[in-house]
Amino acid sequence: MARPSARGKIVDAACEALHTLGFNGCSIQDITDAAEVPKGSFFNHFKSKELLALEVLERYGETSRMELLLDASKPPLERLRDHFEFLTSRYAAWNYNRGCLIANFGAEMADSHPPMREALKGTLDFWCNAVAGILREAQAKGDVDPRRNPDELARFLVNSWEGAVIRLKVVKDRSPLDDFFAVCFGFLLK
Amino acid sequence: MARPSARGKIVDAACEALHTLGFNGCSIQDITDAAEVPKGSFFNHFKSKELLALEVLERYGETSRMELLLDASKPPLERLRDHFEFLTSRYAAWNYNRGCLIANFGAEMADSHPPMREALKGTLDFWCNAVAGILREAQAKGDVDPRRNPDELARFLVNSWEGAVIRLKVVKDRSPLDDFFAVCFGFLLK
Repeated sequence: MARPSARGKIVDAACEALHTLGFNGCSIQDITDAAEVPKGSFFNHFKSKELLALEVLERYGETSRMELLLDASKPPLERLRDHFEFLTSRYAAWNYNRGCLIANFGAEMADSHPPMREALKGTLDFWCNAVAGILREAQAKGDVDPRRNPDELARFLVNSWEGAVIRLKVVKDRSPLDDFFAVCFGFLLK
Repeated sequence: MARPSARGKIVDAACEALHTLGFNGCSIQDITDAAEVPKGSFFNHFKSKELLALEVLERYGETSRMELLLDASKPPLERLRDHFEFLTSRYAAWNYNRGCLIANFGAEMADSHPPMREALKGTLDFWCNAVAGILREAQAKGDVDPRRNPDELARFLVNSWEGAVIRLKVVKDRSPLDDFFAVCFGFLLK
């Protein structure tokens, strides 16, 4: 097996460090220490911590199993629930620490880092479009009220989820996600 | 008029600095510079930046006009809408920067600062209880479906609002709040 490159080790370490400590809460030194590479090697691979954070956001998206939203073998609302259940299992595995990297970077970096703001916008738009597609399917099957605007409702659902995940970091259990499931799948999506 | 004390100047400057730059994004020096007091005077008044942040959170709560939620002269759902409209006007005045201090501190500090986590929990519980009280009143008047659990729905609304405000920081306009109003007051609260 090939030895991981210094670059790869830095990205792996940054995924963990930026998610657990925040962008301003961890230094380049923290990341290179965790990666077990010399601090000086950082700038051989990255022009800035911000550019590394953009790569970490991309990696986070890739590990979020967004393909669950597109699995046409399952009924649309079941697929949507599976998607949020997968995310829930990930928060549980992190002991309700960390939260969602998108919300964390949104809270911490959206004002001060325009390239991150653009990347977050793209990530959230992609996510909302996938959810809106599911809602359209569900409307076509008669599972969701056809009077609803699927794009508006998708944005609302995704934003509500992100807010529930902020609350999860505060209460340190899954109860805010349970509230989300109860309201959304109990009566909002009817 | 009495000259503001060094302590008061530090708190005023910290309200602005911690909200715009984040907890880890601003130093004690940034705060004392903005307050125009010597850096050394900080520790005459505060044991740590964290304790100052707790005071800033309290001040944020006091300026959030939570009393609007308790104004019994207005019908409950109108009062709830007025509350969120007031918060909306505040975000507009900040040009859709800053966001909600509660969500920002939740994202950035809930994992690493247990006293802040407890303070955020208390703030959010207080807010949710006030909203739940309104929902109970609205149910008694027949304005909200009596089958809904008002505590669960209140937590969901507050969390959804916080998520919408994270999104507002990303898109830099009020559209995520418009989605919230459209869904919540359009059909969720029926």
